[in-house]
Amino acid sequence: MNFDDIKLPAGMAGNVDHVGIAVTNLDDAVKLYKGLLGLELDGVEEVPREKIRVAFLRLAKGSGIGHIELLEALDPDSNIGRFIAKKGPGLHHVAFAADDMTQALANCREAGIRLLNEEPVVGAHGKMVTFLHPKDTGGVLVEICSAEH
Amino acid sequence: MNFDDIKLPAGMAGNVDHVGIAVTNLDDAVKLYKGLLGLELDGVEEVPREKIRVAFLRLAKGSGIGHIELLEALDPDSNIGRFIAKKGPGLHHVAFAADDMTQALANCREAGIRLLNEEPVVGAHGKMVTFLHPKDTGGVLVEICSAEH
Repeated sequence: MNFDDIKLPAGMAGNVDHVGIAVTNLDDAVKLYKGLLGLELDGVEEVPREKIRVAFLRLAKGSGIGHIELLEALDPDSNIGRFIAKKGPGLHHVAFAADDMTQALANCREAGIRLLNEEPVVGAHGKMVTFLHPKDTGGVLVEICSAEH
Repeated sequence: MNFDDIKLPAGMAGNVDHVGIAVTNLDDAVKLYKGLLGLELDGVEEVPREKIRVAFLRLAKGSGIGHIELLEALDPDSNIGRFIAKKGPGLHHVAFAADDMTQALANCREAGIRLLNEEPVVGAHGKMVTFLHPKDTGGVLVEICSAEH
C-alpha cells in the first residue's frame, strides 16, 4: 500500500455517516445513548442478511446525516456475534459517506487497500455499503456508504 | 446501574464531538483519512499530559460528528501506548458534547456510571473532558466534553 499514491478528490462526502457499536442488549444500550447521552432514537430495524437488530440514534446537527448505530446480534454465528465473542461489546466500525461510491472504491483499490466485499451490498436504511480491510486501515473497520442526498 | 432512572434532559448537546482513533504512525494515518477518506486536516497538537500527538480532521458541515481525532503515543507508557500494546491500533473512544458538563456528570453519577476522572480535566483544544468507565457503558470508552459555542 502506498498512501502517497492516493489522489484527491476521492469521491468522498467528507463526513461520517455513522459510528457502529456492537452491543449485547439493544434495549439497555438505547436507554444509555438516548437517556443519558441525549441522542434521539430514529428507529430499530432488523437486517436479516447480517443477522442483527440495529437501532439508529440521530445526532443533533445535520438533519439525518450522522448517526450512532447500535448493533445487536440475533445469532452468535454472525459478524457482530463473532466480534462480541472475540473482543466483547464496544466500538465496531466507522462509516464514511461517499458522493461517488465507484470513484471512492477505485481510489481504495489504487491505493492497495483491500475491500472486504468487492461489490457494494445493501446495508441498513437501504444504503449501498462496502467495508475496507482493517489490516489496511490501521486496525479500524472502515465502511464506505452511499451519501444521503 | 439502573438505566430506567436516567432522566432527560441530560445536559448533553446531542451530537458527537469526535471519534478518537489510536494509530501507530500519525503521518500515515493522516494521509489515509485526508487523502483517501476526504477529510480536512485542522491541525496537529501535542498533549504532554497524555504523552500523545493528536491530529484533528474536520468533518464536512452537516455531519453531527465534528472531528476525527488521530492519537499517536509519544511514550509506550501512556494510555494510548498501553491501548495499542494490548489491543492494537484502532477505534479508541467516542466523545459526546455536553452543553452543561456539571449536569451531564451528575446524571452519570445518578445512573451509577463510574467516571474515570471525577473532575473534568483539560484535554486537546483546551476543552474540559471526562471519561466514563467502559464497564458501565457496554465496553465503549465514552468521553464527555464541553460543547463548542
